[in-house]
Parts: sequence; C-alpha cells; structure tokens
Amino acid sequence: MSLLAIGSVAFDQIETPFGKSDKIIGGSGTYIAMAASYFTNQTKLVGVVGEDFRQEDLNMMQKHGINTEGVQIKKGEKTFFWSGRYHADLNTRDTLVTELNVLGDFDPIIPESYQDCEYLMLGNATPAVQKTVIERLHKRPKLIVLDTMNFWMEEAFISGLKEVIGMVDVVSINDEEARMLSGEYSLVKAAKKIMAMGPKYLIIKKGEHGALLFSDEQIFFAPALPLEDVFDPTGAGDTFAGGFIGHLASTKDISFENMKRAVIYGSAMASFCVEQFGPEKLIELTADELEGRVQEFIDLVQFEIEYN
Amino acid sequence: MSLLAIGSVAFDQIETPFGKSDKIIGGSGTYIAMAASYFTNQTKLVGVVGEDFRQEDLNMMQKHGINTEGVQIKKGEKTFFWSGRYHADLNTRDTLVTELNVLGDFDPIIPESYQDCEYLMLGNATPAVQKTVIERLHKRPKLIVLDTMNFWMEEAFISGLKEVIGMVDVVSINDEEARMLSGEYSLVKAAKKIMAMGPKYLIIKKGEHGALLFSDEQIFFAPALPLEDVFDPTGAGDTFAGGFIGHLASTKDISFENMKRAVIYGSAMASFCVEQFGPEKLIELTADELEGRVQEFIDLVQFEIEYN
Repeated sequence: MSLLAIGSVAFDQIETPFGKSDKIIGGSGTYIAMAASYFTNQTKLVGVVGEDFRQEDLNMMQKHGINTEGVQIKKGEKTFFWSGRYHADLNTRDTLVTELNVLGDFDPIIPESYQDCEYLMLGNATPAVQKTVIERLHKRPKLIVLDTMNFWMEEAFISGLKEVIGMVDVVSINDEEARMLSGEYSLVKAAKKIMAMGPKYLIIKKGEHGALLFSDEQIFFAPALPLEDVFDPTGAGDTFAGGFIGHLASTKDISFENMKRAVIYGSAMASFCVEQFGPEKLIELTADELEGRVQEFIDLVQFEIEYN
Repeated sequence: MSLLAIGSVAFDQIETPFGKSDKIIGGSGTYIAMAASYFTNQTKLVGVVGEDFRQEDLNMMQKHGINTEGVQIKKGEKTFFWSGRYHADLNTRDTLVTELNVLGDFDPIIPESYQDCEYLMLGNATPAVQKTVIERLHKRPKLIVLDTMNFWMEEAFISGLKEVIGMVDVVSINDEEARMLSGEYSLVKAAKKIMAMGPKYLIIKKGEHGALLFSDEQIFFAPALPLEDVFDPTGAGDTFAGGFIGHLASTKDISFENMKRAVIYGSAMASFCVEQFGPEKLIELTADELEGRVQEFIDLVQFEIEYN
C-alpha cells in the first residue's frame, strides 16, 4: 500500500492583506504530499525542481516520511516560481509572476520503487503530464484521484483534460471549475455531467462554504470550519486532496462511507493550511491537533433527529 | 403556548428565468405563518392588508390553522405590492415595483386573544414596528426572534434597528447583512459583534451555502440541500424563520441542541419554498414529505468518526 503524488514543487511568494512571505516552498505536489504524510508513511512524490531548490526543503519532506526519489533536480535550471497577491476578501487574487522554468518541459519519470503504488493523486499539472503518469504505471492503481484547474479548461487543453478525466476514479475541483467544465450553473447538474465523463465520484470544493462529494446515488456535504481569520488560502485545495487520499490510503477502504470521512479529514487539513503562510502550519502539526480539529467538524454539524 | 408572527402580508409578482407569476400572495408574515403552521396549530398573525386582498387567501391561511384575527383589513386602501425580477443565477434580483400602500403607516395592533403568546417572530418590517410589537405585549414572550434586511441598516434606520436587536433573543439575517451590520468580513467576528448588541443567538443564512447558528460558545452549521433546480427564492428566508420558530414553539424547548434541530427544520421548509413560485409549495405539503426532506439533510451531513 503506497500513495503516489504528482504535482508541482515550487517556490511561492505570497502577499495577503496580512503580510508578505519570503520565497517559500509551495506547489501542488508539495501540499498534497505534506498533507498525506499525516496519514501514511508511504507517500511517494514525483516532481521536478531546479538547482536553486533548497536541500533543507527536501530534508523537511523526508523528515515527514515522504519519499522524494521521484523529485528530479535539473542542473543549471530554476524551480517553478509563482507570486501572487490576494484581495481583501481572500477569495480572489492577482498573479504577479509565473516563471515556469523546469516545469515547462516536465517529464514525469516514475522510479521503479514507486511502481507498487495503489493510490495515485494527480495534483494540478498539464493534462498531458497527468495522463503520462497513468500510462507509465505498470499496474493501474486501486484509486486515481485527479485535481485540476480552470486554466486547463480553456479551448487549447480541454480535450486533453476530458481524456484524462475519463481515466480516473475521483475528480476534485472547485465550484467555479465545475460550472466551467460542465456548462451548468446548478452544481447537482454539473456533477451529473462531469461524472458522465468517466469518474465514479466528484468532489466540488466551495472554499469557505465547504465541499460536496457526489456519487451516482449519494451526496455528502462537509462544511468548512468557520474561522475567525483566514491568513493565506494558498494550497488549501491541494492540502484537502492530500488529506482526502491520505486517509483512504491509510485505511485501504474506498467505500463511499469512508470517502465521507476522507472529505472531513481533507477539510480539517485544509483548515490548518489557511492559518499560516504557505505550508508552514503543515510542517509541525500534532496528532492531537488533528484529532481536535476533526472533533470540531463533528460538533459543527452533528444534530439528532429521530423518527419512529 | 402560542406563536405570534408579524410581518408583511402582500401581493408579489415574480419573474425568474423560468417564468412569471401572477399577482400572488406573499410577504414576510405570510411565509413565516405558513411555514410555522406545519409545526403548531397555535400560529397567530399580525399584519395589514387593503380592501383588494382576497378572501380566498385568508381562507387558505385559516385552513392551515393560522389565526388571522390580527390581520387588519383597511377599507379603501390597497395591499402592499412588490414586483421583482431574478437574474440568471437567482442570487440577485431587481426590484421592479414597490407600492407600500397600507404598509406605509402600519400600526401593529395586537388582539387581546394574542396576548398569551410565548414565541414571537418579528418578520421583516420597520424596526419601529418591530419594537412597538414587543412593547404592546403585556408579558415578554419566552423567546423573541427577529428577522430584518439590509434596507434597515442604512443610516436613517440603523439606530432604531440596533435598539430592537438589543431587545430580542435570536437574530436571523443573511451573510451580506451580517457583514453590513457588523462591519466585519469574517462571519465569526461578525457574529461576536452582533451578539454583543444583545441577542444570545445569531443565525446567519447563506442561501445555497446553508446557515450558521451561533451562541457565545458554540457554532452549528446546517447545509442547504443541493437542489437540481431552484425555481424561485422569494420568501425562502422568511420560510426558514417560520420553520425555525415553529419547531421551537411546538417542542417548548429553547436549548441550543433543540435550536440545531430547528435550523434543520427551517432549512427543510426553505428547500420546499424555492421549488415553486411564491408560497405555492407551502400550501399542500404533507408530513411525509417534510419527514423525507429532513431525512435528506441527515443523510447529507451524517458521517461517523470515532476516537477512542
């Protein structure tokens, strides 16, 4: 039982109404692996960085039990860099800088030691890269989860995105993306259309409004924790995905009932993520903190109505 | 044990992307009383209409067990009329016509037979009218719930609104209104500021994103049911309030635990309301339909995580 995560491993520089970060570690692959590492010590990461990447950041991931053998280090090249500034409501942001660097021609090489993976988390990347990863695995994983973003729903990429969506079990996107991908405003209708593209399950993330998990027959809703302050939303969606698949991999149970729990764990991890810059808060979490946070979710939605 | 509801009793003409209604019965008092009538046969309504009001609409309310003795009929005058058109997303609307008519100088007279009320639902009305109702009750009700809207948060009305908010137990408003009233974007901070104005409990309605119930120490979240189609959102907030206080009045229990159930019942009633024009769907609901809908809420959020 191991979990393979792919995605960007990056440097981010973030401005929020509360301050400005240094150039810190970021990227979808980083957040996914960090979140998953709280559930399983069998997390394996595929990604690419430049010569400028810091050994201390790789060490930090390894200390979390993350296998970074699949993170290629490109000599003479630079790590993907993103810089953005959030607006006052923290729901919208401007991208200030995007330097693709090593990500421009990312070829996701799967180390032989990763071939046993049973759980595959395709973090945000080009649909072509996501598809290549699936094809390079000798055996189809037990569960493939895909995260993506609106950028890949533009005309130039949409057919590739739909092709890879047709190859996975679970898609995880936000409400705006679900509407864009389906052409439907109603999320219930959007979910039906997206599941008709292939995946058996769909997660629609609604940020501060929680997340919906759909199957053919069932809908589950998990709230977001009402937080006094959101400090930095960067990586929250990836962190959610990492907690989601991390819980599934650690319990080896992909039933809908267990996916509901996985959505709660993903939401709990995301609620930590937004409390500090980048993945800072994900570095030193304790099991007690996570348990306490999950208990807050239980308290938030639990009620008793009995019919006889 | 009886429930006193005050608010507008009106004619509405509604346009949505799906069609246009005739001049149909509406108004905050109507929706509240109709929703509450599914929980208690002791609902008493205070309001005012003109000579043009239809006896059949009064009969319909009476058939629901609603006492309309407190609905004044003004000879030679016309009923409050509102007409609006919803945009494609159904979250925003333009008001086309507002004719205050009898509502312009509404003096809320409380019939002597209403003086025993233990539960008071102050539906949307001028803060002055809401305050007058409280003052005219010989004995303070066991629970006073107030609904209001952004219009009364403008400079000309805000001091009056804050005064009446200071006299009630529960305030029920939407997220935009909570932000406007408190000057805080974070709903957790907004809730603290609003409860500091006097009420022990605050409900923040988030439309399709559900509702939050706050006390000093606890937060409860109820989702909205993900609906394939919302047909007409008119009256959903009032219907929620009517279901909320209706459940509390019928169970005579104003604990936080029971308020959580009341929020679920209110949400269930609101989910019916939006399925047809105006209060149409609230006219012929069955107990089975309501029970089935509440079960959908239970299924939507229920999950099991056990810590030992």
